[in-house]
Amino acid sequence: MLPPADNDSSWLSRISIVLVGTSHPGNVGGAVRAMKTMGLSQLVLVAPRCDPYTSEAVARASGADELIQAAQRFDSLEEALATCSWVVGCSARTRTMPWPMITPRRFSLQLEEEVARGAHDSRIAIVFGREDSGLTNDELARCNTHVHIPTSDSFGSLNLAAAVQLMAYESRQAWLEASGDSEATALSDRQNEDAALQQSMQNVEWDNPLASHADVERLLEHFERTLIATGFHDPEHPRQLMARLRRLLLRARLDSMETNILRGILSSVDKLTPPSKS
Amino acid sequence: MLPPADNDSSWLSRISIVLVGTSHPGNVGGAVRAMKTMGLSQLVLVAPRCDPYTSEAVARASGADELIQAAQRFDSLEEALATCSWVVGCSARTRTMPWPMITPRRFSLQLEEEVARGAHDSRIAIVFGREDSGLTNDELARCNTHVHIPTSDSFGSLNLAAAVQLMAYESRQAWLEASGDSEATALSDRQNEDAALQQSMQNVEWDNPLASHADVERLLEHFERTLIATGFHDPEHPRQLMARLRRLLLRARLDSMETNILRGILSSVDKLTPPSKS
Repeated sequence: MLPPADNDSSWLSRISIVLVGTSHPGNVGGAVRAMKTMGLSQLVLVAPRCDPYTSEAVARASGADELIQAAQRFDSLEEALATCSWVVGCSARTRTMPWPMITPRRFSLQLEEEVARGAHDSRIAIVFGREDSGLTNDELARCNTHVHIPTSDSFGSLNLAAAVQLMAYESRQAWLEASGDSEATALSDRQNEDAALQQSMQNVEWDNPLASHADVERLLEHFERTLIATGFHDPEHPRQLMARLRRLLLRARLDSMETNILRGILSSVDKLTPPSKS
Repeated sequence: MLPPADNDSSWLSRISIVLVGTSHPGNVGGAVRAMKTMGLSQLVLVAPRCDPYTSEAVARASGADELIQAAQRFDSLEEALATCSWVVGCSARTRTMPWPMITPRRFSLQLEEEVARGAHDSRIAIVFGREDSGLTNDELARCNTHVHIPTSDSFGSLNLAAAVQLMAYESRQAWLEASGDSEATALSDRQNEDAALQQSMQNVEWDNPLASHADVERLLEHFERTLIATGFHDPEHPRQLMARLRRLLLRARLDSMETNILRGILSSVDKLTPPSKS
């Protein structure tokens, strides 16, 4: 079967590659070359620590440098993620608080569903951290899922552009698969049987669109205000409370009605608490 | 399940990355870095058109440059392939005479069989051509199979080190799969989001045991009592409220600390509501 035409790429154009605090222009150039070979076009730069459009960047981009010029820029990851329905953070680290962690392969399988689930104008972000120190704990805590590229135990030093290449490749695999190009993923017969069985078991259409990242952030802020008002949460002694609520709510992939219900519950509790002094 | 230890790598050490006529030392450096992250160690250089061990190569290798120093060198591809039982040539081109052509995914599946089939000292070669012109027809004709990395129709310009990265990644996937690490390829239970979430939580060492079914039921009962007391929930007009909370909390696979936190929040709200008449 012929692969789908590249101009059928509204699917791929919903995926953003988000580079946080990149230091080396050459890596930005390598990243956009990697993106363009796989049909991705949306670059987001968060607080870059270099000029991302130098001669070195253009040389490494090798004909893809218009993606750097067209890149959106933000000062914080928070702003960059506002309209995203699924946020995947690339992480090499085991964090203090464990987070759902998937492989690039599983990312590819899940991406197909996420594109179908999100509102037609919602975005999917794949977030890459700094060359030297990756993503901060706070940045990782804004992701629905973390993905770990399985590297050698003794040498895990994956170049930033190489990591983008692998994730862009797995994104394209998902798109080819979604477009009916089953050879792209080359499932063996045995695995096809599994897949067929699973498919016959479900594939439900969800009843509400996913909540946006910004909606979930507003819900978490509301939670914090309300829990302070009730006295349950003491910001002086936070005991990981908000971090744990954050992990729970991001993991659950709230839909828009669920965020409305939880906001409604919080508002009804607010009416019971004494008015804030501030 | 734990990934196999890297010292169990006689499997991976049978795979050679063969670079033919490479022009840029930086690409040799990028290639060995890509190889080493995926546990590959055997580099073969055929008639390089540059000094492969310059300061640029060492910089791009980022700690993997010993693979360049240990590389075997040959004047012709013919000599380089003498002891190989399976030769895979990376090709961007459609040739005059069609050749068996596979995707990187199919390569990964087939690699597992080929390693098992070949004599224990036989080698497998993945051959990459020149940056500007790829492999010649004569060189392509020495391969058992060609592999084509599916790139965009409008921009197929994959960097040499990026191509090595993708094929090294697919080689490692095959090894992980052969070693019984099925999560590496994650081809089963696709479409099954609940299983995927559960697996993504098991993939890392979670910090708390999962809540029991009974714990979650007690939490839901507590939710219902509290929401009736606050006036948010009217059992005469339930509007699917409890059904939606149930779906959310079951989907999230709560751990025991999360159920305790939510019970604690509900108890703190209970203190604000008038005592029940019953």
